[in-house]
Amino acid sequence: MITPAEPRDGPDILAISAGVEVFNEEEVQTVDELWQDSLNRGAQASGYYFLVDREGEHVLGYACYGPRALTEGTYDLYWIAVDKRQHGKGVGKALIRAVEKEVRQMGGRLIVVETSGLDKYTPTRSFYESTGYTLEARLVDFYRDGDDLVIYTKHL
Amino acid sequence: MITPAEPRDGPDILAISAGVEVFNEEEVQTVDELWQDSLNRGAQASGYYFLVDREGEHVLGYACYGPRALTEGTYDLYWIAVDKRQHGKGVGKALIRAVEKEVRQMGGRLIVVETSGLDKYTPTRSFYESTGYTLEARLVDFYRDGDDLVIYTKHL
Repeated sequence: MITPAEPRDGPDILAISAGVEVFNEEEVQTVDELWQDSLNRGAQASGYYFLVDREGEHVLGYACYGPRALTEGTYDLYWIAVDKRQHGKGVGKALIRAVEKEVRQMGGRLIVVETSGLDKYTPTRSFYESTGYTLEARLVDFYRDGDDLVIYTKHL
Repeated sequence: MITPAEPRDGPDILAISAGVEVFNEEEVQTVDELWQDSLNRGAQASGYYFLVDREGEHVLGYACYGPRALTEGTYDLYWIAVDKRQHGKGVGKALIRAVEKEVRQMGGRLIVVETSGLDKYTPTRSFYESTGYTLEARLVDFYRDGDDLVIYTKHL
Protein backbone atom coordinates (compact mmCIF):
# COMPACT_ATOMS: atom_id res chain seq x y z
CA MET A 1 0.00 0.00 0.00
CA ILE A 2 1.37 3.40 -0.99
CA THR A 3 1.13 6.13 1.64
CA PRO A 4 3.05 9.21 2.76
CA ALA A 5 6.18 8.10 4.63
CA GLU A 6 6.11 8.07 8.44
CA PRO A 7 9.00 8.74 10.83
CA ARG A 8 9.46 4.98 11.40
CA ASP A 9 10.17 4.51 7.66
CA GLY A 10 13.47 6.42 7.85
CA PRO A 11 15.77 3.42 8.43
CA ASP A 12 14.14 1.46 5.58
CA ILE A 13 14.37 4.42 3.20
CA LEU A 14 18.07 4.76 3.94
CA ALA A 15 18.72 1.01 3.77
CA ILE A 16 17.01 0.81 0.38
CA SER A 17 19.06 3.76 -0.89
CA ALA A 18 22.31 2.23 0.33
CA GLY A 19 21.39 -1.09 -1.27
CA VAL A 20 20.64 0.30 -4.72
CA GLU A 21 23.86 -0.08 -6.66
CA VAL A 22 23.50 3.03 -8.78
CA PHE A 23 23.46 5.37 -5.76
CA ASN A 24 26.89 6.52 -4.62
CA GLU A 25 27.72 7.48 -1.04
CA GLU A 26 27.11 11.19 -1.62
CA GLU A 27 23.71 10.44 -3.11
CA VAL A 28 22.71 8.24 -0.16
CA GLN A 29 23.77 11.08 2.15
CA THR A 30 21.65 13.52 0.12
CA VAL A 31 18.58 11.30 0.48
CA ASP A 32 19.22 11.30 4.24
CA GLU A 33 19.45 15.11 4.28
CA LEU A 34 16.18 15.53 2.38
CA TRP A 35 14.51 12.96 4.63
CA GLN A 36 15.67 14.72 7.81
CA ASP A 37 14.55 18.07 6.43
CA SER A 38 11.15 16.61 5.52
CA LEU A 39 10.80 15.09 9.01
CA ASN A 40 11.91 18.21 10.88
CA ARG A 41 10.02 20.85 8.94
CA GLY A 42 7.26 18.78 7.38
CA ALA A 43 6.81 17.99 3.69
CA GLN A 44 5.21 21.28 2.74
CA ALA A 45 7.72 23.60 4.43
CA SER A 46 10.75 21.57 3.32
CA GLY A 47 9.41 20.94 -0.18
CA TYR A 48 10.34 17.24 0.06
CA TYR A 49 7.45 14.81 -0.09
CA PHE A 50 8.15 11.10 0.51
CA LEU A 51 5.84 8.25 -0.46
CA VAL A 52 6.50 4.64 0.53
CA ASP A 53 5.09 1.38 -0.73
CA ARG A 54 4.60 -0.71 2.41
CA GLU A 55 3.77 -4.41 2.76
CA GLY A 56 3.07 -5.16 6.42
CA GLU A 57 6.07 -3.84 8.33
CA HIS A 58 8.31 -3.88 5.27
CA VAL A 59 9.00 -0.89 3.00
CA LEU A 60 9.35 -2.09 -0.60
CA GLY A 61 10.37 1.23 -2.10
CA TYR A 62 10.00 4.97 -1.84
CA ALA A 63 9.78 8.10 -3.96
CA CYS A 64 10.71 11.69 -3.09
CA TYR A 65 9.36 14.65 -5.03
CA GLY A 66 8.53 18.31 -4.58
CA PRO A 67 7.71 21.59 -6.30
CA ARG A 68 10.42 23.38 -8.29
CA ALA A 69 11.01 26.93 -7.05
CA LEU A 70 10.05 29.78 -9.39
CA THR A 71 7.73 27.61 -11.49
CA GLU A 72 3.97 27.25 -11.59
CA GLY A 73 3.04 23.59 -11.30
CA THR A 74 6.40 21.95 -12.10
CA TYR A 75 7.55 19.19 -9.77
CA ASP A 76 10.88 17.40 -9.49
CA LEU A 77 10.93 13.67 -8.93
CA TYR A 78 14.13 13.67 -6.88
CA TRP A 79 14.51 10.01 -6.03
CA ILE A 80 12.74 6.75 -6.60
CA ALA A 81 14.22 3.51 -5.32
CA VAL A 82 13.00 -0.03 -4.78
CA ASP A 83 14.43 -2.68 -2.46
CA LYS A 84 16.73 -4.83 -4.60
CA ARG A 85 14.85 -7.98 -3.52
CA GLN A 86 11.61 -6.48 -4.87
CA HIS A 87 12.76 -5.53 -8.36
CA GLY A 88 10.64 -6.59 -11.33
CA LYS A 89 7.37 -6.66 -9.40
CA GLY A 90 5.96 -3.32 -10.49
CA VAL A 91 6.78 -1.49 -7.25
CA GLY A 92 8.57 1.35 -9.07
CA LYS A 93 5.76 1.75 -11.55
CA ALA A 94 3.14 1.85 -8.78
CA LEU A 95 5.22 4.48 -6.94
CA ILE A 96 5.65 6.72 -9.97
CA ARG A 97 1.90 6.54 -10.71
CA ALA A 98 1.21 7.50 -7.09
CA VAL A 99 3.59 10.46 -7.37
CA GLU A 100 1.80 11.61 -10.53
CA LYS A 101 -1.57 11.36 -8.77
CA GLU A 102 -0.33 13.39 -5.78
CA VAL A 103 1.29 16.01 -8.01
CA ARG A 104 -1.90 16.36 -10.01
CA GLN A 105 -3.88 16.82 -6.80
CA MET A 106 -1.50 19.60 -5.75
CA GLY A 107 -2.14 21.38 -9.05
CA GLY A 108 1.02 20.16 -10.75
CA ARG A 109 1.15 19.90 -14.53
CA LEU A 110 4.74 18.84 -15.27
CA ILE A 111 7.14 16.33 -13.69
CA VAL A 112 10.87 16.60 -14.33
CA VAL A 113 13.35 13.79 -13.66
CA GLU A 114 17.10 14.16 -13.83
CA THR A 115 19.32 11.11 -14.20
CA SER A 116 22.67 10.06 -15.56
CA GLY A 117 23.56 9.06 -19.11
CA LEU A 118 26.02 6.39 -17.92
CA ASP A 119 25.58 2.80 -19.11
CA LYS A 120 24.82 1.60 -15.60
CA TYR A 121 21.74 3.85 -15.60
CA THR A 122 20.29 2.20 -18.71
CA PRO A 123 17.69 0.30 -16.63
CA THR A 124 16.77 3.57 -14.89
CA ARG A 125 16.28 5.39 -18.20
CA SER A 126 14.31 2.44 -19.62
CA PHE A 127 12.08 2.59 -16.56
CA TYR A 128 11.24 6.25 -17.18
CA GLU A 129 10.70 5.66 -20.88
CA SER A 130 8.39 2.72 -20.21
CA THR A 131 6.33 4.79 -17.77
CA GLY A 132 5.65 7.60 -20.25
CA TYR A 133 8.52 10.00 -19.65
CA THR A 134 10.09 11.79 -22.61
CA LEU A 135 13.81 12.39 -22.97
CA GLU A 136 13.89 16.15 -23.38
CA ALA A 137 17.49 17.21 -22.77
CA ARG A 138 21.05 16.02 -22.34
CA LEU A 139 23.82 18.14 -20.83
CA VAL A 140 27.16 16.67 -21.83
CA ASP A 141 29.69 16.02 -19.02
CA PHE A 142 27.35 17.53 -16.43
CA TYR A 143 28.04 15.25 -13.45
CA ARG A 144 31.69 14.75 -14.40
CA ASP A 145 33.66 14.18 -17.59
CA GLY A 146 31.91 11.39 -19.47
CA ASP A 147 28.83 11.47 -17.25
CA ASP A 148 25.96 13.39 -18.86
CA LEU A 149 22.82 14.76 -17.24
CA VAL A 150 19.71 13.37 -18.91
CA ILE A 151 16.36 15.08 -18.31
CA TYR A 152 13.01 13.39 -18.71
CA THR A 153 9.66 15.13 -18.48
CA LYS A 154 6.04 14.14 -18.34
CA HIS A 155 3.18 16.58 -18.93
CA LEU A 156 0.27 15.50 -16.72
CA MET B 1 36.39 46.89 -9.82
CA ILE B 2 35.01 43.40 -9.40
CA THR B 3 35.32 41.88 -5.91
CA PRO B 4 33.42 39.50 -3.66
CA ALA B 5 30.32 41.24 -2.29
CA GLU B 6 30.46 42.75 1.20
CA PRO B 7 27.61 43.07 3.72
CA ARG B 8 27.17 46.76 2.81
CA ASP B 9 26.38 45.76 -0.81
CA GLY B 10 23.09 44.09 0.17
CA PRO B 11 20.80 47.09 -0.42
CA ASP B 12 22.37 47.79 -3.83
CA ILE B 13 22.10 44.14 -4.89
CA LEU B 14 18.41 44.13 -4.00
CA ALA B 15 17.75 47.52 -5.60
CA ILE B 16 19.40 46.39 -8.84
CA SER B 17 17.32 43.18 -8.82
CA ALA B 18 14.09 45.08 -8.22
CA GLY B 19 14.97 47.54 -11.01
CA VAL B 20 15.65 44.91 -13.68
CA GLU B 21 12.38 44.53 -15.53
CA VAL B 22 12.72 40.82 -16.29
CA PHE B 23 12.84 39.84 -12.57
CA ASN B 24 9.42 39.24 -11.04
CA GLU B 25 8.66 39.73 -7.35
CA GLU B 26 9.27 36.09 -6.45
CA GLU B 27 12.65 36.19 -8.18
CA VAL B 28 13.69 39.35 -6.34
CA GLN B 29 12.69 37.64 -3.09
CA THR B 30 14.78 34.60 -4.05
CA VAL B 31 17.84 36.78 -4.64
CA ASP B 32 17.29 38.22 -1.17
CA GLU B 33 17.07 34.74 0.36
CA LEU B 34 20.30 33.59 -1.30
CA TRP B 35 22.01 36.81 -0.25
CA GLN B 36 20.90 36.44 3.39
CA ASP B 37 22.02 32.81 3.39
CA SER B 38 25.39 33.78 1.92
CA LEU B 39 25.80 36.53 4.55
CA ASN B 40 24.74 34.38 7.49
CA ARG B 41 26.61 31.18 6.69
CA GLY B 42 29.32 32.49 4.40
CA ALA B 43 29.70 31.78 0.68
CA GLN B 44 31.29 28.37 1.06
CA ALA B 45 28.81 26.90 3.57
CA SER B 46 25.78 28.36 1.81
CA GLY B 47 27.04 27.56 -1.69
CA TYR B 48 26.10 31.07 -2.87
CA TYR B 49 28.98 33.25 -4.03
CA PHE B 50 28.29 36.91 -4.89
CA LEU B 51 30.57 39.14 -6.94
CA VAL B 52 29.92 42.86 -7.40
CA ASP B 53 31.29 45.37 -9.86
CA ARG B 54 31.83 48.51 -7.79
CA GLU B 55 32.66 52.05 -8.90
CA GLY B 56 33.42 54.16 -5.85
CA GLU B 57 30.46 53.70 -3.51
CA HIS B 58 28.18 52.55 -6.29
CA VAL B 59 27.45 48.91 -7.23
CA LEU B 60 27.04 48.65 -11.00
CA GLY B 61 25.99 45.01 -11.09
CA TYR B 62 26.37 41.66 -9.41
CA ALA B 63 26.56 37.95 -10.14
CA CYS B 64 25.65 34.99 -7.93
CA TYR B 65 26.99 31.50 -8.59
CA GLY B 66 27.82 28.29 -6.79
CA PRO B 67 28.63 24.59 -7.12
CA ARG B 68 25.88 22.20 -8.20
CA ALA B 69 25.32 19.39 -5.68
CA LEU B 70 26.25 15.85 -6.74
CA THR B 71 28.53 17.03 -9.56
CA GLU B 72 32.28 17.32 -9.88
CA GLY B 73 33.19 20.78 -11.05
CA THR B 74 29.83 22.01 -12.35
CA TYR B 75 28.70 25.47 -11.25
CA ASP B 76 25.38 27.24 -11.62
CA LEU B 77 25.33 30.90 -12.54
CA TYR B 78 22.17 31.70 -10.59
CA TRP B 79 21.78 35.40 -11.22
CA ILE B 80 23.54 38.17 -13.04
CA ALA B 81 22.08 41.68 -13.10
CA VAL B 82 23.30 45.15 -14.01
CA ASP B 83 21.91 48.48 -12.86
CA LYS B 84 19.56 49.66 -15.62
CA ARG B 85 21.45 52.95 -15.88
CA GLN B 86 24.67 51.05 -16.61
CA HIS B 87 23.45 48.81 -19.43
CA GLY B 88 25.51 48.63 -22.62
CA LYS B 89 28.81 49.46 -20.94
CA GLY B 90 30.20 45.94 -20.66
CA VAL B 91 29.46 45.50 -16.95
CA GLY B 92 27.65 42.20 -17.48
CA LYS B 93 30.41 40.84 -19.67
CA ALA B 94 33.08 41.80 -17.13
CA LEU B 95 31.06 40.12 -14.39
CA ILE B 96 30.58 36.88 -16.30
CA ARG B 97 34.29 36.73 -17.12
CA ALA B 98 35.07 37.26 -13.42
CA VAL B 99 32.69 34.42 -12.49
CA GLU B 100 34.43 32.13 -14.99
CA LYS B 101 37.83 33.01 -13.52
CA GLU B 102 36.66 32.32 -9.97
CA VAL B 103 35.00 29.05 -10.97
CA ARG B 104 38.15 27.94 -12.75
CA GLN B 105 40.19 28.74 -9.64
CA MET B 106 37.84 26.60 -7.55
CA GLY B 107 38.42 23.68 -9.93
CA GLY B 108 35.22 24.16 -11.91
CA ARG B 109 35.02 22.95 -15.49
CA LEU B 110 31.42 23.65 -16.52
CA ILE B 111 29.03 26.58 -15.98
CA VAL B 112 25.30 26.10 -16.39
CA VAL B 113 22.82 28.96 -16.82
CA GLU B 114 19.06 28.57 -16.76
CA THR B 115 16.84 31.25 -18.23
CA SER B 116 13.46 31.71 -19.82
CA GLY B 117 12.48 31.27 -23.47
CA LEU B 118 10.04 34.20 -23.35
CA ASP B 119 10.46 37.04 -25.84
CA LYS B 120 11.28 39.51 -23.08
CA TYR B 121 14.36 37.40 -22.28
CA THR B 122 15.75 37.72 -25.82
CA PRO B 123 18.38 40.27 -24.69
CA THR B 124 19.34 37.91 -21.83
CA ARG B 125 19.77 34.96 -24.19
CA SER B 126 21.69 37.14 -26.68
CA PHE B 127 23.99 38.16 -23.83
CA TYR B 128 24.84 34.53 -23.00
CA GLU B 129 25.29 33.66 -26.67
CA SER B 130 27.61 36.62 -27.23
CA THR B 131 29.73 35.64 -24.23
CA GLY B 132 30.37 32.10 -25.45
CA TYR B 133 27.51 30.13 -23.89
CA THR B 134 25.89 27.34 -25.89
CA LEU B 135 22.17 26.66 -25.93
CA GLU B 136 22.09 23.03 -24.84
CA ALA B 137 18.51 22.30 -23.81
CA ARG B 138 14.96 23.59 -23.79
CA LEU B 139 12.23 22.24 -21.53
CA VAL B 140 8.86 23.21 -22.96
CA ASP B 141 6.38 24.90 -20.56
CA PHE B 142 8.77 24.48 -17.64
CA TYR B 143 8.12 27.75 -15.77
CA ARG B 144 4.45 27.85 -16.76
CA ASP B 145 2.43 27.15 -19.89
CA GLY B 146 4.13 28.99 -22.74
CA ASP B 147 7.27 29.78 -20.72
CA ASP B 148 10.11 27.37 -21.51
CA LEU B 149 13.28 26.73 -19.54
CA VAL B 150 16.35 27.35 -21.69
CA ILE B 151 19.72 25.98 -20.54
CA TYR B 152 23.05 27.39 -21.64
CA THR B 153 26.42 25.84 -20.80
CA LYS B 154 30.04 26.78 -21.13
CA HIS B 155 32.88 24.32 -20.78
CA LEU B 156 35.83 26.15 -19.24
